[in-house]
Amino acid sequence: MSADKLPSTKPYFVRAIWEWCNDNGFTPYLAVTVDASCRVPQEFVKESQIVLNIGADATHKLQMQNDAIFFQARFGGVAREIYVPMTRVAAIYARENGNGMAFEVETTEPSAATGGEDNEPKDTPPPSGRSGRAHLQRVK
Amino acid sequence: MSADKLPSTKPYFVRAIWEWCNDNGFTPYLAVTVDASCRVPQEFVKESQIVLNIGADATHKLQMQNDAIFFQARFGGVAREIYVPMTRVAAIYARENGNGMAFEVETTEPSAATGGEDNEPKDTPPPSGRSGRAHLQRVK
Repeated sequence: MSADKLPSTKPYFVRAIWEWCNDNGFTPYLAVTVDASCRVPQEFVKESQIVLNIGADATHKLQMQNDAIFFQARFGGVAREIYVPMTRVAAIYARENGNGMAFEVETTEPSAATGGEDNEPKDTPPPSGRSGRAHLQRVK
Repeated sequence: MSADKLPSTKPYFVRAIWEWCNDNGFTPYLAVTVDASCRVPQEFVKESQIVLNIGADATHKLQMQNDAIFFQARFGGVAREIYVPMTRVAAIYARENGNGMAFEVETTEPSAATGGEDNEPKDTPPPSGRSGRAHLQRVK
């Protein structure tokens, strides 16, 4: 069996880091490379990136399935339905220390790119650009 | 918080790979760097290494806790109690394709090293020495 055709380990690693955060009181942040397949608040997307708090306290009906992550969350007081295909997950890491895992995300076709309005990004940018202690492992 | 003092993600990754194997019909092999803290069949230890099948079908009462993995299994028809501290786990991977994850294991003190009788190693050696498709990621 070719490794290229193996079922992806990515959702298993995403859940692993989420559980590690949850068990240790850390806040799991999900970095998403947004394209048209994602349902996220566009007003918080910046340069096709959004960082979502997917902690148990910040989400409702969180499901992390093999093909997608979905949940409800409040943004600016308004409940929103969030849907992120697993292929669009760029990283999951603990807000408090940057520890986690990063993934390669296929380049988005320009036609599918979102508008990316510049508005209220999360207070922690995606870890790849952080100074300080980001201990991410990049996997395919 | 220093990354050195963060709780280990290793048990979470071990469980993740186990679940990935289990969900996809692969056989999870656990490579262990044996020392005196491990309870494993010494007759199958070779150069301080043993590879254990920890699939649901091959084990009984399998528990993968944050500090250790333990289960019952039959070796040569005899039921044995196995105990492996998480620190001694060198890798977990699918027998069928070598996909999984490898970990650094601290060097064993010579005084704690096991005898390592040369007898009936598992048919698949630890993945680090395999030819073919081993897709392990080494993490600290």
